[in-house]
Amino acid sequence: MSEHQRATPETIGSDRIAVDAMGGDFAPEAVVQGALLAASRDGIPTLLVGDEEAIHAANDSLVDHPLISVRHASEVVAMGAEPASSVRRMKDSSIVRAAEAVRDGDAIALLSAGNTGAAMAASLLRIGRIKGVTRPTIAVPFPILGSTTRCSLVDAGANPDATPEMLVQFAQLGAVYTRSRYGVARPRVAILTIGEEAGKGNALVKEAVKLFEDGDWALSCGADYVGNMEGNDLMSGAADVLVCDGFTGNVVLKSLEGAMEIALDAIRAALVSTPDAVATAPVLDPILTPLFNILNPKLIGAAMLCGTREVSVISHGSSNADTIANAIRTTSELANSTVVQDFRDVFSK
Amino acid sequence: MSEHQRATPETIGSDRIAVDAMGGDFAPEAVVQGALLAASRDGIPTLLVGDEEAIHAANDSLVDHPLISVRHASEVVAMGAEPASSVRRMKDSSIVRAAEAVRDGDAIALLSAGNTGAAMAASLLRIGRIKGVTRPTIAVPFPILGSTTRCSLVDAGANPDATPEMLVQFAQLGAVYTRSRYGVARPRVAILTIGEEAGKGNALVKEAVKLFEDGDWALSCGADYVGNMEGNDLMSGAADVLVCDGFTGNVVLKSLEGAMEIALDAIRAALVSTPDAVATAPVLDPILTPLFNILNPKLIGAAMLCGTREVSVISHGSSNADTIANAIRTTSELANSTVVQDFRDVFSK
Repeated sequence: MSEHQRATPETIGSDRIAVDAMGGDFAPEAVVQGALLAASRDGIPTLLVGDEEAIHAANDSLVDHPLISVRHASEVVAMGAEPASSVRRMKDSSIVRAAEAVRDGDAIALLSAGNTGAAMAASLLRIGRIKGVTRPTIAVPFPILGSTTRCSLVDAGANPDATPEMLVQFAQLGAVYTRSRYGVARPRVAILTIGEEAGKGNALVKEAVKLFEDGDWALSCGADYVGNMEGNDLMSGAADVLVCDGFTGNVVLKSLEGAMEIALDAIRAALVSTPDAVATAPVLDPILTPLFNILNPKLIGAAMLCGTREVSVISHGSSNADTIANAIRTTSELANSTVVQDFRDVFSK
Repeated sequence: MSEHQRATPETIGSDRIAVDAMGGDFAPEAVVQGALLAASRDGIPTLLVGDEEAIHAANDSLVDHPLISVRHASEVVAMGAEPASSVRRMKDSSIVRAAEAVRDGDAIALLSAGNTGAAMAASLLRIGRIKGVTRPTIAVPFPILGSTTRCSLVDAGANPDATPEMLVQFAQLGAVYTRSRYGVARPRVAILTIGEEAGKGNALVKEAVKLFEDGDWALSCGADYVGNMEGNDLMSGAADVLVCDGFTGNVVLKSLEGAMEIALDAIRAALVSTPDAVATAPVLDPILTPLFNILNPKLIGAAMLCGTREVSVISHGSSNADTIANAIRTTSELANSTVVQDFRDVFSK
């Protein structure tokens, strides 16, 4: 059964999101359930790309679904596979076909919870970079408790070996993203390093500081440069954008995910470790559960690849249906915002 | 009043710890109180080095204390000061004088909660490196819940720009430290990177992997090389030593400290946010407080500078009296262990 037989007028050429149905630890089931939830809860149309049989096996109700289409792709780039060569070689993989759908105007944005490197490579090769952007970068928004805004960590993993010039572009992309996504009029941008004094850092940061101290880049993207910050400012609210190379950013992201997961699991276990503790649940669950959800970095759910010609979003590999549904909503919101045009405006100057 | 007038036979030439009394956010008060606690609780003698007047002003009972001596130093290297030049210039600073006490055999080990770079520089310049060690490295032990052992992150900040060869030495030093300190017979050593596959990482890691795959270094220090790991394995128990450059390690350390502090503060606040929640305290405090203490990275308290000719330990800048007392005990335990000789044995091969 092909998409063309099943597509309805509502979905063709509409503002649907191309979703790599085979991407993620619980694909395709979690992706399919997430798409159904996004459709029923938020009315967002999706194009699920992947193994047609497996996708339909995950849920019967996809057939003739008014908001969900399925497009077959015969290959899957595995989570651990080498990204660039896999994407070049596996032309009928779900991530490549999903990116092509965006390139061809069949969908307005791309979402994948699969191999991050493959999602990046497919986005770069099929959707392409915005003119002037040397390397797209991944922005991961960290929660600021008591605030509706977030602190964006850029680069959270796209470019393990960055140059000082790239860090400046990450700052610009991160500032535009943060303004567009969180309404921060003048994002405060800091370099993530190992001491707040200007002389602290590694060779990359020391070189970058010289470029950052030249205000032209900040002017071009409406940011305020606030100097060096350390990792403890990632969630303190002292900055809106923290800039680093993709190696550092990804290690920090994974370290925080791991530590926070271990901490929250241990606290949850402690709260049911005695009958008296269990008895506190009716009082404490309504207070603690929302807090735990904010603190769990895995629930961030969606990180934007900033700098491609259309919106491309990467969701966590461990995404469940809820996380996928939230990521679909985020992707849709980004695709319906001016963020890509805002990127273009900065880099066309 | 000088040390020589006050020193008792018990303290001269004994196994006392030289403590930079002016180091840390709450110095000298917290350091003095910590030394008093270490003396009364653990019977550990200390030599407090710093502004004599300020040290005595912090506590009257230091005069004629049987286990605590005071040595005057007129200068203080500020927390934010450039380390190497400060140490070279400020020859009568507390950290330099404390390191000299160790060099001269007046104390068996050095402890500072002050400027980390200055503590390192003073240790290098006054105490010196073990022959064969290119660059000493900082090992920070992270808690593994449910285990008495720890996972040592090396380098946690000593060498922001490391070479592949340095990473191999960090692995050796970290393995010896972990065996000596936590009784791990064959420490499992992994490279901290951004993907578990061998090809993942930045240029430094990719070069280092080639050296790590040659088993000679592991044999020399009795370690098992277990490949690449990501940040989420820092507290998972999958490795005993995680190796990275000092920039990455320090950013990770500070990020975890910040996130964990914010998370634990928020959870503590939630637990007293309503009268009903407050009422759960008698049940939950005894369960949660010890867990919160384990999870708080600031309470790690003491990180060893591995590779110097005598034991040198760095405590957190925010150390309070308890943390200082614990750090004094850790320093004393390390100084009375075979760890430095074990380092020498590996690097003399």
